[in-house]
Amino acid sequence: MARAARFTLAELATALGARLEGDPARVVTGVATLDRATPAEISFVTHARYHDAARVSRAGAFLASDDAGELPGPALRCSAPQRALVDLLLLFHPPATTVPGIDATAVVARGAHVDPTASIGPLTVVEDGAMIGAGARLHALVYVGPGAEIGAESVLYPHVTVRHGVRLGRRVIVHPGAVLGADGFSYVPDAGRHRKVPQVGGVVIEDDVEIGANAAVDRAMLGETVIRRGTKIDNLVQIAHNCDVGEDCVIAAQVGIAGSSRIGRGVVLAGQVGVADHLTVGEGVTAAAQTGIHTDIAAGQTIWGTPARPAFQTKRIAVAANHLPELARRVRALERAVEALTSGRGSAPGGGDGA
Amino acid sequence: MARAARFTLAELATALGARLEGDPARVVTGVATLDRATPAEISFVTHARYHDAARVSRAGAFLASDDAGELPGPALRCSAPQRALVDLLLLFHPPATTVPGIDATAVVARGAHVDPTASIGPLTVVEDGAMIGAGARLHALVYVGPGAEIGAESVLYPHVTVRHGVRLGRRVIVHPGAVLGADGFSYVPDAGRHRKVPQVGGVVIEDDVEIGANAAVDRAMLGETVIRRGTKIDNLVQIAHNCDVGEDCVIAAQVGIAGSSRIGRGVVLAGQVGVADHLTVGEGVTAAAQTGIHTDIAAGQTIWGTPARPAFQTKRIAVAANHLPELARRVRALERAVEALTSGRGSAPGGGDGA
Amino acid sequence: MARAARFTLAELATALGARLEGDPARVVTGVATLDRATPAEISFVTHARYHDAARVSRAGAFLASDDAGELPGPALRCSAPQRALVDLLLLFHPPATTVPGIDATAVVARGAHVDPTASIGPLTVVEDGAMIGAGARLHALVYVGPGAEIGAESVLYPHVTVRHGVRLGRRVIVHPGAVLGADGFSYVPDAGRHRKVPQVGGVVIEDDVEIGANAAVDRAMLGETVIRRGTKIDNLVQIAHNCDVGEDCVIAAQVGIAGSSRIGRGVVLAGQVGVADHLTVGEGVTAAAQTGIHTDIAAGQTIWGTPARPAFQTKRIAVAANHLPELARRVRALERAVEALTSGRGSAPGGGDGA
Repeated sequence: MARAARFTLAELATALGARLEGDPARVVTGVATLDRATPAEISFVTHARYHDAARVSRAGAFLASDDAGELPGPALRCSAPQRALVDLLLLFHPPATTVPGIDATAVVARGAHVDPTASIGPLTVVEDGAMIGAGARLHALVYVGPGAEIGAESVLYPHVTVRHGVRLGRRVIVHPGAVLGADGFSYVPDAGRHRKVPQVGGVVIEDDVEIGANAAVDRAMLGETVIRRGTKIDNLVQIAHNCDVGEDCVIAAQVGIAGSSRIGRGVVLAGQVGVADHLTVGEGVTAAAQTGIHTDIAAGQTIWGTPARPAFQTKRIAVAANHLPELARRVRALERAVEALTSGRGSAPGGGDGA
Repeated sequence: MARAARFTLAELATALGARLEGDPARVVTGVATLDRATPAEISFVTHARYHDAARVSRAGAFLASDDAGELPGPALRCSAPQRALVDLLLLFHPPATTVPGIDATAVVARGAHVDPTASIGPLTVVEDGAMIGAGARLHALVYVGPGAEIGAESVLYPHVTVRHGVRLGRRVIVHPGAVLGADGFSYVPDAGRHRKVPQVGGVVIEDDVEIGANAAVDRAMLGETVIRRGTKIDNLVQIAHNCDVGEDCVIAAQVGIAGSSRIGRGVVLAGQVGVADHLTVGEGVTAAAQTGIHTDIAAGQTIWGTPARPAFQTKRIAVAANHLPELARRVRALERAVEALTSGRGSAPGGGDGA
Repeated sequence: MARAARFTLAELATALGARLEGDPARVVTGVATLDRATPAEISFVTHARYHDAARVSRAGAFLASDDAGELPGPALRCSAPQRALVDLLLLFHPPATTVPGIDATAVVARGAHVDPTASIGPLTVVEDGAMIGAGARLHALVYVGPGAEIGAESVLYPHVTVRHGVRLGRRVIVHPGAVLGADGFSYVPDAGRHRKVPQVGGVVIEDDVEIGANAAVDRAMLGETVIRRGTKIDNLVQIAHNCDVGEDCVIAAQVGIAGSSRIGRGVVLAGQVGVADHLTVGEGVTAAAQTGIHTDIAAGQTIWGTPARPAFQTKRIAVAANHLPELARRVRALERAVEALTSGRGSAPGGGDGA
């Protein structure tokens, strides 16, 4: 996806607020990783783990932290190179501009309101009463149900489903195949069978949320399932009905959160974590991959394992578990030794008896 | 999604078969949770855990069990309030009626049979030889493959895929993005590579099954993958080829069941459970979240953990594991003490040696 | 999905290179499993576990290994019956031939290049600059983004999303709902919020790869996410940005691989395995179901558990863990006994004190 962009290092230094070490007139035409960058491209040294690769890189220039040491070419130095990298990438790869208008093959209900600056792609369906905000972009083959609202500048990729009445804020990004507002999973026993509980609530996705490919956020039974401002949700995540996920959370791929649980602000759940229903996970909690959360978790904790424990404790248990079979043998040896001592035959434990 | 419904408490008491405590002429216009209900709405007290919230609720009336205690407003008392809540929700939110007919933008093959009372949404594809039953509703952007059968009154939400020859019974609900009848995952080694085993079997989904968003049920190699009557499957679940899932099971989100396994009637698998291939999980088994099932499980058990064990045993092991690092230190102290005793120097374990 | 095929056993023996025991003129009209085969069908005995079922099968003939013992009917004997079964299935169920051409309802951009021998299904979208190779088949409701490339003879099932610039090799199979090239999940902290890192790289899917229903392979930040030749990926799998998955791997359902990890050639990851980011999993590693990989894994290992350990070690720990609560009690008893010995009261451990 190369673009025909070219910048001098002086231009880049100005745009990124970086300090230039080297020839200001030098031109670079792209960004690449250290191992792949050519002399025509700029690379980046955003972690100490990249220092060795930087030394041998053929890149024509480097974006680097002030303390990244000497580099084999001109450097743009700054205090926050990760943030500067975002700006650098946007310079070389500016976001596609949205072409306003409704594709001739889209099926937009007469009672839908589509802002004239919004873009509706081929074969996309917008049902009656739906509202599509200014500058919003619906790619091809998207489905927006009756009465749903898509906020300004939001982007819905192909095959997204937004069911009736679901409300998305501004600048929300929904990746392909994600499903917002499917029925929550709820039944009551009735004459030996499962009777479906109607799911008549909604879903609210606040501003600046991002939702990954093939993820699912179910609608509430009553009231709303809420994903709050700035939270980022990765692919294949399941958020069940009536959950409330706080602001600025990071929910990695394949996490599942069961019904009515509340996730505090700034929580980080790594891949494949599970959260049981009706729980509260406190502000700022971090859970390592595959953690299984079955109880409320107090704010600020770092947890790991199933059942979830403080991470340092799970780590200690895991280390001790490595020696568990041996520990069992040592206890057997001790029992023999103590028995011998008790009966007056006295031999030390851990001897040559195969223990 | 408010509807313009209004009922007197007398009308509701009659409809729900409940005993009314309070003014029969009082009108309510909606159902809401205890914390959000206004005096114009009715709320519900279906669990003991809601009793405190009920005391301070502003709701205009309450649906409650006979033993829910005193309430701050009129009450509709009944012995099974959870079931009555379903009826109450259906009164205020009656299911949308299906408008029969094929949308002008749908692509229905000439050789497909669509019952005149069925509804086919915009941009939905129905291939040759498919059968769509009476009152069935296919929303927009659904795909039904050649020779597939959709039973009467079944509902397929947007972006559902039903591949060729898959058969759905009556009143089946399939949520957005679910895939029924993709190829099973099967290869044989051949000259150092993986050669695909043709998957020429089918899928049968019996009556009253519900399948969650972005779930997948693979077609059989030969014969059929079967989901039996009344089973409920949540979002992002994987059911592999040739599985047989019994009647009235509850399969929570992100569960995976590997090839050819048989799940007995009434089994409950909580979120993220995994079942290995060619296993039998007996009738009425309940598996806690994230359980990993690697062996056959006898009927009626409640299991937890990886590897799966009786839940009480996994719980005991988890408690004991909390003390495992300390246990290892105590064993070391014992070894020292016994060695001292054996060599005649005699000091008690658990002393000040850091144990 | 029965086909009107019929073969004599002589014909089958020739086609499969098998040795016939029995009447060469006998005709069979289908393939079925041992328990369901009728006398008109041929069945197969490809595992020792099927020997008992074979003895009582009504099948009209059997495909079996040389050492499968006596069978209750004519047998086609061969040394590799699993491979022969693939050939047998293909004889009775030949793959559908692709009808070249673009369906009238497909939306193909003028700047897309579709090979005249390719097949584009109803309501499929092919964007500008995309290339569809010879004999490729795009089913209905597929999305192929700008500049994407679909290699010759590849098959994309309904509701597949291939985002811009993604490149697929030859004979790639992508099952319904899979998403190739969604943005990687990457943010940098900026003023207390998460700022999105542009994902401007691509995805390369090499020849003979198969990707399961509703699976996701994210595009790289820079460079490419790569799935190498012959690798098979099951349903609901997540492959994060910048991963490199080697040749001939088998990645079972619901596996998740986090960003920038490298999976060696021939790796087998069973269901629900998780691999953390920036790791290397060596060639030929096998990981049992639900394993959580948090460190590099050397080539050739068989691992299991969270944290991942050699499988035999996790198994031993699991066995020892069964006795952990009892072990703790035995240690307590030992401590009492040693204390008694030390203080001169001498009683053996494991006595009647509840240990």
